[in-house]
Amino acid sequence: MALLLGLLVQACMEHSAEPQAGIGAPKVILIIGDGMDDQQITIARNYLLGAGGRLALDDLPVRSAARVETVAEDKPDQPIYVADSANSATSMATGIVTSLGRIATTAKTDQDIETIMELAQAAGLGTGIVTTSSVTDATPASFVAHINQRHCEGPLGMVRFIEQFQLSVDCSQDEKSSGGKGSIAEQIASSGLDIVLGGGSRYFEQTTEEGSERTVLDVAHQNGFQIIYAQEELGGASKTEKILGLFSRGTMPVWLQGVDGAQAQRIERVEGQVNLPEPFLCEPNPNFEGMPSLADMTSAALGHLDDGRGFMLMIESASIDKQSHQRRPCGHIGELSQLDDALKVALDFAEKNSDTLILVTADHTHAAQIIADQGPHLEFNYATPGYLARVRTREGGIMSINYATNESPREMHTGAQVPVFSNIPGIRELTGLIRQSDIYHISANHLGLAILADH
Amino acid sequence: MALLLGLLVQACMEHSAEPQAGIGAPKVILIIGDGMDDQQITIARNYLLGAGGRLALDDLPVRSAARVETVAEDKPDQPIYVADSANSATSMATGIVTSLGRIATTAKTDQDIETIMELAQAAGLGTGIVTTSSVTDATPASFVAHINQRHCEGPLGMVRFIEQFQLSVDCSQDEKSSGGKGSIAEQIASSGLDIVLGGGSRYFEQTTEEGSERTVLDVAHQNGFQIIYAQEELGGASKTEKILGLFSRGTMPVWLQGVDGAQAQRIERVEGQVNLPEPFLCEPNPNFEGMPSLADMTSAALGHLDDGRGFMLMIESASIDKQSHQRRPCGHIGELSQLDDALKVALDFAEKNSDTLILVTADHTHAAQIIADQGPHLEFNYATPGYLARVRTREGGIMSINYATNESPREMHTGAQVPVFSNIPGIRELTGLIRQSDIYHISANHLGLAILADH
Repeated sequence: MALLLGLLVQACMEHSAEPQAGIGAPKVILIIGDGMDDQQITIARNYLLGAGGRLALDDLPVRSAARVETVAEDKPDQPIYVADSANSATSMATGIVTSLGRIATTAKTDQDIETIMELAQAAGLGTGIVTTSSVTDATPASFVAHINQRHCEGPLGMVRFIEQFQLSVDCSQDEKSSGGKGSIAEQIASSGLDIVLGGGSRYFEQTTEEGSERTVLDVAHQNGFQIIYAQEELGGASKTEKILGLFSRGTMPVWLQGVDGAQAQRIERVEGQVNLPEPFLCEPNPNFEGMPSLADMTSAALGHLDDGRGFMLMIESASIDKQSHQRRPCGHIGELSQLDDALKVALDFAEKNSDTLILVTADHTHAAQIIADQGPHLEFNYATPGYLARVRTREGGIMSINYATNESPREMHTGAQVPVFSNIPGIRELTGLIRQSDIYHISANHLGLAILADH
Repeated sequence: MALLLGLLVQACMEHSAEPQAGIGAPKVILIIGDGMDDQQITIARNYLLGAGGRLALDDLPVRSAARVETVAEDKPDQPIYVADSANSATSMATGIVTSLGRIATTAKTDQDIETIMELAQAAGLGTGIVTTSSVTDATPASFVAHINQRHCEGPLGMVRFIEQFQLSVDCSQDEKSSGGKGSIAEQIASSGLDIVLGGGSRYFEQTTEEGSERTVLDVAHQNGFQIIYAQEELGGASKTEKILGLFSRGTMPVWLQGVDGAQAQRIERVEGQVNLPEPFLCEPNPNFEGMPSLADMTSAALGHLDDGRGFMLMIESASIDKQSHQRRPCGHIGELSQLDDALKVALDFAEKNSDTLILVTADHTHAAQIIADQGPHLEFNYATPGYLARVRTREGGIMSINYATNESPREMHTGAQVPVFSNIPGIRELTGLIRQSDIYHISANHLGLAILADH
């Protein structure tokens, strides 16, 4: 009977819906692929491994989907159907749905919302952020800062006009001189995060006040951050000090590019005949040389945070989005490969460290679509009205990728639900479609954090 | 102790990974949303229920994804990155990956491949097909017929030129007069299916041979099919005879249309300024009146097949694809609503009839994308290069839907992996990404069918 009971308990454990408490301090690794949708995943798989290959992502035992939510700034009960990275990251970081461009602040009323990182710090857990963008970019920023506009990344950019977006930026109420928390870089420099790795040094080199010589780096240093700038420093970084690693001035260079800079282009027509662009291969981007990969940064962050307290770590693969905006398929393929390699590092860590919940998701979907490379439409000289890239795959095929959401120099986000993956089978909260804000709740639950009822 | 053991057994049952055998004959309901991807699901949810609503689909406990596979006709080891409904349905119906346009036949070698319906019939199980397209269309055809080209739907169309696709159709080797199995309609008429419901009567009205007066309907009648043409006959149809229900000449009319026929349109430019099209609502399509809904047909098929033998039933919501090809958002929204209602009927049946496996999936992804309705691009007078529909949602928002895969009168399929859902938690074969052909294997396994090793 005892044996039978034991077997039953064991059988049950294999399908347990609860994290196995008491084995180790709870740890959450949240990996966000910016703009990573089913098209992007399939594009990357087709190129990197062939249509029949499997990414690490493909083997995760739990698959769900999250509906992305956004509200209008002036009418916070009115849904908007396409998100940006600021409001969608705010959903995941705080559990609260907000309006476009906002960083952990409420729509219309501009109230700061406590983030999962702040909650984890208050509970004595470790916290870290790793990204291939500037660490001040919308996704990482939403986990640590509170500001009304994502574009206020450094102290010199709090009030200005951005030509590219025809956008008036005004974060004057958050300026230090107004008694606010300052720009995103200043808020990171003053934060309690244990490790922050990515790009964006230019925002930290800015002086905090006009006329002063004190930079944001000085603030970070004073707040106990060891600051590093190169891959070589990553392994030897202090285990006891906080780490701020800034490996590029802005977004970190991506791993892959089209041979000779090839990217999607408009279809040419010669005497009424459609002239498809030449297929191209991807090649390593020389600017990536010397950069730590996302997997390198993930390893370093896990090593730094693995001190027995448990932790909340957010890892972002940022340039799936950025390269898709620019119609550069090799760029987003290489970036998704970086995400997959970082996931392998996280899975290896979870294998050795029980009670590690890995969540992989995206903030919003994106423009790129795989379309037929040949077909009857070409007989009629019809082709895409957008931009087309024909990528030659290693298995000898041609993958046509269409970018056609906008005629402007930048493609746009799209508004579909996003994929969600996890390494722990049977998480009840991941059954069926979830809300993007549930990422916050699932993370907080796993870490045992008490959260406010309205989150 | 006995109580504890009982509780443990009960707790285990809730997470059981196996279908509960021995309770009833196994039954599989495979629901295919033609062209149903995450964009389509989100578009339908936003319109029908609001961004925060939940479709029946959203509550299914198991979510997976399938990679869609296609090979080149002349080089069957060469992958093609975008499927059509014929080759993708062949994957699901036979477990074998084939080339574009083929109906349950092998690429290049043109060998017939046994379908799950044929296997189920041989094992004494019931079989049925329900669709909103012609029953001879590619998806249903692949489950019952074997022919080299999907366009050979009726005996009069076996050799011809299709202007619309600039396509030479030649199924002469399958003509009855050449000793073949004949057109798709003839193969359905001669099949062992227990119930077939959908559109496409025009193919059955064709005479089987030039000079003869014998129609395909005569063949079906002779083969034991009771033939019905109207919704009213559906309830009163024979329970013992086989049923062929043909409710329209071709594709069945869809439920919703844009008010006054509104659909996506090209962006107008007036003096260099972008002029977005007017937002519109959806309204019931008057042609849908008197048609059985997909849920009605699903109910009828389940009633017919529920005789204790167990069964394989394929249900297709065909016009998600067809309406997206035509840039008609209300059409594909209404069609996805029909799929969701049919799913509710299936779930209700599964609730009452144990050992019913429901699988919901798509054959390929499609053109439509939700894009931002407002944004800085409009300040620069940039807009989509494609066709735009601005659908007014019931919750007071405007959902912009972009169709921009091709300038031709028809949008194109896209090549991403497709969603897969199931009602039975813990199916091991649905863990992680699956192959589209695994739908065949999972169905066959559930039904206890012995399959050939090469399938």
